[in-house]
Amino acid sequence: MSTTGLPFDDIRDLVRRMPGPDEAAVRVKREREGQLTKPAGALGRLEDLSEWLAAWQGRQPAVRRPLVAVFAGNHGVTRQGVSPFPAEVTAQMVANFGAGGAAINQICAAYDLGLKVFDLALEIPTEDITEAAAMDERTCAATMAFGMEVLAGEPDLLCIGEMGIGNTTIAAAIFAALFGGDPRDWTGPGAGHDAAGVDKKARVVAAALERHKGHLADPLEVLRRLGGREIAAMAGAILAGRMQKVPVIVDGFVSTAAAAILYAMDPRALDHCLFGHVSAEPGHIRAVEAIGKVPLLALGMRLGEGTGAAIAAGIVKAAAECHSGMATFGEAAVSNRE
Amino acid sequence: MSTTGLPFDDIRDLVRRMPGPDEAAVRVKREREGQLTKPAGALGRLEDLSEWLAAWQGRQPAVRRPLVAVFAGNHGVTRQGVSPFPAEVTAQMVANFGAGGAAINQICAAYDLGLKVFDLALEIPTEDITEAAAMDERTCAATMAFGMEVLAGEPDLLCIGEMGIGNTTIAAAIFAALFGGDPRDWTGPGAGHDAAGVDKKARVVAAALERHKGHLADPLEVLRRLGGREIAAMAGAILAGRMQKVPVIVDGFVSTAAAAILYAMDPRALDHCLFGHVSAEPGHIRAVEAIGKVPLLALGMRLGEGTGAAIAAGIVKAAAECHSGMATFGEAAVSNRE
Repeated sequence: MSTTGLPFDDIRDLVRRMPGPDEAAVRVKREREGQLTKPAGALGRLEDLSEWLAAWQGRQPAVRRPLVAVFAGNHGVTRQGVSPFPAEVTAQMVANFGAGGAAINQICAAYDLGLKVFDLALEIPTEDITEAAAMDERTCAATMAFGMEVLAGEPDLLCIGEMGIGNTTIAAAIFAALFGGDPRDWTGPGAGHDAAGVDKKARVVAAALERHKGHLADPLEVLRRLGGREIAAMAGAILAGRMQKVPVIVDGFVSTAAAAILYAMDPRALDHCLFGHVSAEPGHIRAVEAIGKVPLLALGMRLGEGTGAAIAAGIVKAAAECHSGMATFGEAAVSNRE
Repeated sequence: MSTTGLPFDDIRDLVRRMPGPDEAAVRVKREREGQLTKPAGALGRLEDLSEWLAAWQGRQPAVRRPLVAVFAGNHGVTRQGVSPFPAEVTAQMVANFGAGGAAINQICAAYDLGLKVFDLALEIPTEDITEAAAMDERTCAATMAFGMEVLAGEPDLLCIGEMGIGNTTIAAAIFAALFGGDPRDWTGPGAGHDAAGVDKKARVVAAALERHKGHLADPLEVLRRLGGREIAAMAGAILAGRMQKVPVIVDGFVSTAAAAILYAMDPRALDHCLFGHVSAEPGHIRAVEAIGKVPLLALGMRLGEGTGAAIAAGIVKAAAECHSGMATFGEAAVSNRE
């Protein structure tokens, strides 16, 4: 389908070829659901989750190889003082992930989720978006393609998370470019800014939007100009999940910015995605609502690393187990309603 | 402290002797929390959960022996046609729990939670509360004491659940007696009634309240006159958790009725309790708000069996793991905020 040969054309081609849900798997799932030893509908959203798995795994729901993928990137915009933490923390936290010392390590251990961390050229931050495009098209497309490799180990459920000092500023710029509104609508404390810090972030976002004005109609251009490497990689991973029948759980504010790029390309692009939680970062609920999703959890988390998605994955696992493991009324000799 | 020698006096004496939170354990927990490799507060409610564990376990938070206890009882009021399922389903579901075929079995397996099911004289339903007191005082107090035995295996986290055809009617009557309001405020579809069925339940609740009018000022009398055996046992189990430093996760509508009895005796009696979720049964949020609690989850579940509490326990486990397993800034050589 590629006509011009530019790197983004392959991405656009994939989006055009996205498969829909597996209606046959959904029918089989619903048929069994109605026979399980509980009042119809009594497991509430757990029943929705197992149906979502069936639709996008294209089989009866099962979570045997869940994976949390954490993408880490560095951002030239940190030179504008947008984070209370120094930029070297990105690499330090990647080392912490490797040593098993971060929050995401503990949650993965608690729920037996695989964990892979992708270090995206941390030594080469993207350009400062107040001055230049973050990346060139080739780098952006190659990073998306790299993100697609997350499926190499054949997970059957994928949680998307990130680490990157400065990346709530990047995400805010992306949301403002895609969904409009004032930069202040999308900026918040991030890792812990006070009101003055949030003001500064909003001014940096406004400066970036001004710098790239007139070039933000194409979502992939928004990604290239404003986005970080981890956001490009997450967008690739989400798209790959769709193509390869792997349902995706999106984490918080920054992960949602990656999802939003795909949504802006095609509103159906996130039909295989669950939003695991709503972050305490104030712009997140606004972004999730713009995308038309209802987050599973609201736990006041705002850490990133895929932590909110991983907590949600624990619930998705239980939902799959309920569907596959429960006895039917017939098997258990339990009387159904009169 | 027992002065009259009546069976309820021992219960009243326990409530008077309830210990408070362990402030020293909380201080140690907070000190460590501030050193963990994440922005302060970034794990949101997970940090509250690990503090709650510390306060009521009286040690650094850990979930090594979590237990789900499901109490099953039968109710004479089922003869009024208050459930769309026949009363024999209670015993059939107890057999299903034993065989591993119910929803709670799958959730316990998913999160490695222990499961014990207590069959409370299913062959002897309590009296029909529209005609008589459900139990005599000796039976009620003995059933509460039996519920306290749930801690024999020394769990360090206890989830409380139940099974009993007809028991949403029983719970509605208890809430109306304790918190007032119209019977309709507390009656809902339960296991799946239509509007006519809900109307009938509300009329049965009104008849029970009329029958016991003038005798419902003492919460233990409310329990004895209106409550089922499983509700008495759950109230005992919750109280035992308090006395023996075992935090308790309360499940849904019916479990909350047991908690409400204790709350009416002393509003501090539920300080060691987490409400795992808000049920889809419409009266549940009203009851939880009357008690002054904020449920952890809202997943539209309405099954009972401890399923909502067990899903919450999965999150509590992850919260404890984050607190105990994460590296500190010093250990991981991660730079803290500037």
